Amino acid sequence: MTNTSNIQSEDVEALCTEILKKQNIPERDALITAKSLVDADLNGISSHGVMRLPLYLKCLQETAFESNPQIKIVKETKSTALLDGGNGLGQVVSQKAVDLILEKIKETEIVAISVRNSNHFGAAAYWANHLQEHNIIGISASNVPPIMPAPGGAETRVGNNPISIAIPTDKEAPIILDMATSTVPFGKILNAKSKGELIPEGWAVNSSGQPTRNPDEVVNGGSLFPVGGPKGYGLSVIIEVLSALLSDGAIGSDIKVLHNTPSNVSHFFLGIRIDAFMDPTTFKSKVSNYIQFIKSSKLAEGVEEVYLPGELEFRRKEKNVSGGVNLPISVIEELIAFSEAMDLDEGLIKPFYQVSTK
Amino acid sequence: MTNTSNIQSEDVEALCTEILKKQNIPERDALITAKSLVDADLNGISSHGVMRLPLYLKCLQETAFESNPQIKIVKETKSTALLDGGNGLGQVVSQKAVDLILEKIKETEIVAISVRNSNHFGAAAYWANHLQEHNIIGISASNVPPIMPAPGGAETRVGNNPISIAIPTDKEAPIILDMATSTVPFGKILNAKSKGELIPEGWAVNSSGQPTRNPDEVVNGGSLFPVGGPKGYGLSVIIEVLSALLSDGAIGSDIKVLHNTPSNVSHFFLGIRIDAFMDPTTFKSKVSNYIQFIKSSKLAEGVEEVYLPGELEFRRKEKNVSGGVNLPISVIEELIAFSEAMDLDEGLIKPFYQVSTK
Repeated sequence: MTNTSNIQSEDVEALCTEILKKQNIPERDALITAKSLVDADLNGISSHGVMRLPLYLKCLQETAFESNPQIKIVKETKSTALLDGGNGLGQVVSQKAVDLILEKIKETEIVAISVRNSNHFGAAAYWANHLQEHNIIGISASNVPPIMPAPGGAETRVGNNPISIAIPTDKEAPIILDMATSTVPFGKILNAKSKGELIPEGWAVNSSGQPTRNPDEVVNGGSLFPVGGPKGYGLSVIIEVLSALLSDGAIGSDIKVLHNTPSNVSHFFLGIRIDAFMDPTTFKSKVSNYIQFIKSSKLAEGVEEVYLPGELEFRRKEKNVSGGVNLPISVIEELIAFSEAMDLDEGLIKPFYQVSTK
Repeated sequence: MTNTSNIQSEDVEALCTEILKKQNIPERDALITAKSLVDADLNGISSHGVMRLPLYLKCLQETAFESNPQIKIVKETKSTALLDGGNGLGQVVSQKAVDLILEKIKETEIVAISVRNSNHFGAAAYWANHLQEHNIIGISASNVPPIMPAPGGAETRVGNNPISIAIPTDKEAPIILDMATSTVPFGKILNAKSKGELIPEGWAVNSSGQPTRNPDEVVNGGSLFPVGGPKGYGLSVIIEVLSALLSDGAIGSDIKVLHNTPSNVSHFFLGIRIDAFMDPTTFKSKVSNYIQFIKSSKLAEGVEEVYLPGELEFRRKEKNVSGGVNLPISVIEELIAFSEAMDLDEGLIKPFYQVSTK
């Protein structure tokens, strides 16, 4: 078991913001990025949380990202825009896109933005959620480097491109689907490997493109497999088209994993105003009825509740806003080390010292 | 093996149109419906082809559908519309929605239409495909009666709601994803049952909501399971919201299977003009490059080619346009029986007599 400790989310956000500012990230952009990472931890999605910051810093130090990117509107209409992210942090670029949707949608009912030349944007749900807070059905999606084969292929051709769709609700948690198009994330393969367990069918293929249940074969030249085979593959292709092809972005091997070069990642965002169809209050009360219908289901043995998409994350966030976000001690100590090396204000580091083992 | 014969698609379309006209369907609407069914057969998707016509006729005779529906625009903006399908045939209602997108999109760049009070609209791909033919990225989706549980549930709560997304291409087949949100259609359970075979994990649950590999347990009170568990379930919920909640349509047990009462099905359609982002010719040539990248993949042993979404259907259609659509003799004889009972022109029935065994 990993050793972990809880820290108040404001303390984590404040420190991460200062660390990013020390990398010549403008204050506003540093805050945008820190907020996105801390939000993932609040939702209990630690894989997209502040544990990513050390990698971001490494990329910034190796100038893989632009610390102060020129984000350009390459082409726009009343309802659309094509953005060039100027190789900025994915969060900075995505915030610009979401802000542009919120601005443009005042004058129309649907806005779509396709974005090239960006980087890892954190959890897709963060951006779709921003839109639903304004009574807008929000969609966010991104490509990632190819890590899955087309069904029948023995080479990676599509990313497990994530997509999130968010629906505003009344008193319940907003409905927020956030899914990658692989059956599982790569971490689950590594978990099985470390435990010496077989993986279920449908998770992965070996280096010859054959289905395998042996995690070693996946790690050694194999790859993840699309969820539902042609279904997950098809969704990945569509996300690639909406993000990278509509924006004239990079495809295939020109998209790089987050490392010492620009990732060339592309995104897609879309917003639909609820009030174009119905009074948002009425809509939300109808969504409430629908949620109640789903949650009133008889349960399988041993199951205590069925959940709507995003509901578990919402509940974790409610708990973590007061109780703090749960971080591995190793991440806490990395953050301390960065802060000390950057000579940050001791007051900012103090909450981290208090839970550190050193 | 089922006995089948090939008949030229124009002959099938002509006969189906006349049969529908005899049910007091206006000529234009009869042709719209016949075209949609025959197109599914051309694509080799016989489950959505003319084998559905006898059921449609039964529904029409029992006045479950309106033969001449009042399709109303309940609310519209420049970029959106909420339609009431007036309980018409799903194809007639969907053609109206797609035509309205094509009309409205001349004045804007994105149009979304949510439709209530409709019926089975055939293959989702048919409507998305219509849009892509106009250099528009097309989305079509529909709810269906609840036939899957939420993960952990022991009662059906969501349909295996289909969605199709279509992308125009240059010389290649258009990219057309068309997927239901269950792992497999119910027919695959019945196939396994008739062969006495076990089904793979992830296809279905029994009446207690427990995963089962026994098709008998699925048929006896069990149900299909969402593809990828929470992923397919989440997509189903989103499709329900976009179709039935945005349109104030029916949800849950108020949606009925195609039978002797209105189905109360809802649809959602969305179109995005390519030229809002890029010259469509440029876009299509970029999509071509992307398609070549995917198809250049090394192949797994025994695999001859990898396909883009919709490519197999496109190739089947190219073949069937000249060679005719392949119909079970039982369907051919049902169509003959209907035609004779309706006293249709012998010339229309002749191509069917020629391949009938009687």
